[in-house]
Amino acid sequence: MINKPSIAVLVTGSEVLDGRVLDTNSHYVAEQLSRLGLRLGNVLSCDDDLDEMVSCLEFLARTNQMILTSGGLGPTEDDLTRAAVARYCGVELTQRPEALDHLRKFFEARKRILEESNLQQALLPVGSEMIPNPVGTAPGFVCRKGIDTVVLSLSGVPSEFQRMFQDSVLPRIEREFENSARRNVVGVKVFGLPESVVGKLVKGLALPPSVSVSYRAVFPEVHVALKAVEDSSSLELKRSRLVDVLGNDFVFSEDLSESFESRVLAILEKRGFTIATAESCTGGMVSGMLTNEPGASKVFRGGVCVYSNDLKTSLVGVSLQTIETFGAVSAEVAEAMAAGVKERLGASVGVSVTGIAGPEGGSEEKPVGTFYIGFAGSDGVVFSQRFHYSGNRQSIRRFATYVALEVVRRTVEGFQIPASLPYVPQSKP
Amino acid sequence: MINKPSIAVLVTGSEVLDGRVLDTNSHYVAEQLSRLGLRLGNVLSCDDDLDEMVSCLEFLARTNQMILTSGGLGPTEDDLTRAAVARYCGVELTQRPEALDHLRKFFEARKRILEESNLQQALLPVGSEMIPNPVGTAPGFVCRKGIDTVVLSLSGVPSEFQRMFQDSVLPRIEREFENSARRNVVGVKVFGLPESVVGKLVKGLALPPSVSVSYRAVFPEVHVALKAVEDSSSLELKRSRLVDVLGNDFVFSEDLSESFESRVLAILEKRGFTIATAESCTGGMVSGMLTNEPGASKVFRGGVCVYSNDLKTSLVGVSLQTIETFGAVSAEVAEAMAAGVKERLGASVGVSVTGIAGPEGGSEEKPVGTFYIGFAGSDGVVFSQRFHYSGNRQSIRRFATYVALEVVRRTVEGFQIPASLPYVPQSKP
Repeated sequence: MINKPSIAVLVTGSEVLDGRVLDTNSHYVAEQLSRLGLRLGNVLSCDDDLDEMVSCLEFLARTNQMILTSGGLGPTEDDLTRAAVARYCGVELTQRPEALDHLRKFFEARKRILEESNLQQALLPVGSEMIPNPVGTAPGFVCRKGIDTVVLSLSGVPSEFQRMFQDSVLPRIEREFENSARRNVVGVKVFGLPESVVGKLVKGLALPPSVSVSYRAVFPEVHVALKAVEDSSSLELKRSRLVDVLGNDFVFSEDLSESFESRVLAILEKRGFTIATAESCTGGMVSGMLTNEPGASKVFRGGVCVYSNDLKTSLVGVSLQTIETFGAVSAEVAEAMAAGVKERLGASVGVSVTGIAGPEGGSEEKPVGTFYIGFAGSDGVVFSQRFHYSGNRQSIRRFATYVALEVVRRTVEGFQIPASLPYVPQSKP
Repeated sequence: MINKPSIAVLVTGSEVLDGRVLDTNSHYVAEQLSRLGLRLGNVLSCDDDLDEMVSCLEFLARTNQMILTSGGLGPTEDDLTRAAVARYCGVELTQRPEALDHLRKFFEARKRILEESNLQQALLPVGSEMIPNPVGTAPGFVCRKGIDTVVLSLSGVPSEFQRMFQDSVLPRIEREFENSARRNVVGVKVFGLPESVVGKLVKGLALPPSVSVSYRAVFPEVHVALKAVEDSSSLELKRSRLVDVLGNDFVFSEDLSESFESRVLAILEKRGFTIATAESCTGGMVSGMLTNEPGASKVFRGGVCVYSNDLKTSLVGVSLQTIETFGAVSAEVAEAMAAGVKERLGASVGVSVTGIAGPEGGSEEKPVGTFYIGFAGSDGVVFSQRFHYSGNRQSIRRFATYVALEVVRRTVEGFQIPASLPYVPQSKP
């Protein structure tokens, strides 16, 4: 086993190979393993073809002790993973009562009828162990070949893959790889600095080579993880240095599992504040993001999406004259929206976004990507700030959604708001 | 050559395997090939290890005529692609004047000094042809092994990879694969049927084996693609049969590039309708989805997110008594929200969502996952329907967002709304 200590992912399905979907499951596994100080040996994608899948399993087994497969467990005839793994392991498929039971319960709970085609999902390789799928129809399985190769087959739907990985695969990996050197992990989440700047600042810390640094960009957030085979208190000291060099205002969380929106909600809740949103170009994405969190109702009162100009007047009381004089995308309108929504929705804080997400609608003075964030606080203070983001419609909208919440976070926490975001600090002289 | 007509990508470098970067180059190639009616045979990632890279090239060459490598052409010692390809092809590396010339010019133009380490970037396999890199230091190359395998090595930096692919690789692919059978692709996008039902219905069509059928579930949509080496009109006939068997009401688009929201907007626009939204549990996701599309402003007036009960009264005029009598999650409140938002926002159509996204807040009568969609039409008709979706908070919210727009789509198009969604048709007797 020592000769092939690594883990591989086999991604099946023509949709990855013909460009319709991006394989994110293998990246997810790589990240999860990385937290344990482990890494992937190979990632291989292949078509839904039985012979090809068997060849790929054989190829991966040369250098990898564990092979995770993603996809091909569904009810349709191009779902061939069960058959391929059985053939690779040299066993037959058999209908398994526990798998059938899972399918029956799944369909019963949803008042749906178990179709003939779903029955093939209960066929598992002889001698394999079922991996429960709490969120979808397809059960997975663990199948050994000889003493030194194990195949774990999971659903390819990302939410199901991740849940099965967390519940069943991760504990097994921790067991099977327990003798590999374990590393402790700490990290920070950053918004507002480009990844290259984060990288440069972290590099400047000159951390010892025993600490491995990894970066993850989840647009527009950047996460930095430090991993080392050392006790967590000494690693936490290194995290403090990380926070110092990046700036405690740019680090929105020192917990790699905390989301940006839950952080913003927690900051408001701590102070007993409530919030209301008024959105134009983001069309509800700010309120949608805040309500991702179950506890949002304690803090979030509601919001308006005033896409048409006349609604800016009727719903949040922006005067027609303000819109005509300064334009719908302006500091004045952003401020009036924030103040109006705060007052009309009875919140302690109002935040607004108005901007040009494109691809049309830009001008020389206000090019596509320009947006204003307005803020109205519990103390009666109202202000706005102009920002610009270069990107496509989707990334401009997502970035503006973050900046709206970032303005709230910084203002409530008492941090300055940088002149531009992402912010590029000037080199020290 | 006819036995291995496909193209593979070999992605080298530990940063993909330890989760630091997501490999997007292979996805880019898959998309580009798809436009030519070609597809990838395999994508394989491996570590920066000479023996391993040679094994991977050998494995891919079994079934692929052309192998693109991504990465490993830089100036550091873990850049081993040049050596691996040379060894695989059975030739030596040699310093090439045209590559050295490129490096000199590149550094001169940027007033940078050519480092010793950069000189190894001018080493190319004997007999290979250089692929110019107009945007970075690393030149690529084309190297043949025998008559039926060709390796093309490109820089792994996405901007360089894409430029080299466009300038040098694409024309070569068009030349080398001009005689390969191009497959045409047609497809449909479905909402409201489970993937297993879609699979069963398509299977019932008994399409000839020459037509390959692939499925893709992008929650909660299901896409079906038919690919065949036949002219597009004959394939389009098969698509009509697909639409017939799935139901022209469940097929929301016959264009694999059209999004659900753009379909809904197009249907409204055709009739000169405008729309307004009132959301509770989806928190702005319906308006956020509609405004993904650049042209949304022609149809979408705006929306309100009435997360607190009192805002249901103040913003869209739901009477306090209705809320107290029936509860915030009820048919009556959904209808009052839809009618209220239609009227107050001056739209021809109003749609509303109120529900319990969980994980808390469910009851026996209204368990987590219960939601009501309200609709108010241009003709004064107001109705609502109750739905239930089993899942986590995230999937319930996403599903409810789709159902809200689906109720609009079906009502405006004159289709019936199924009693439940996803809908499972009863087997014919």
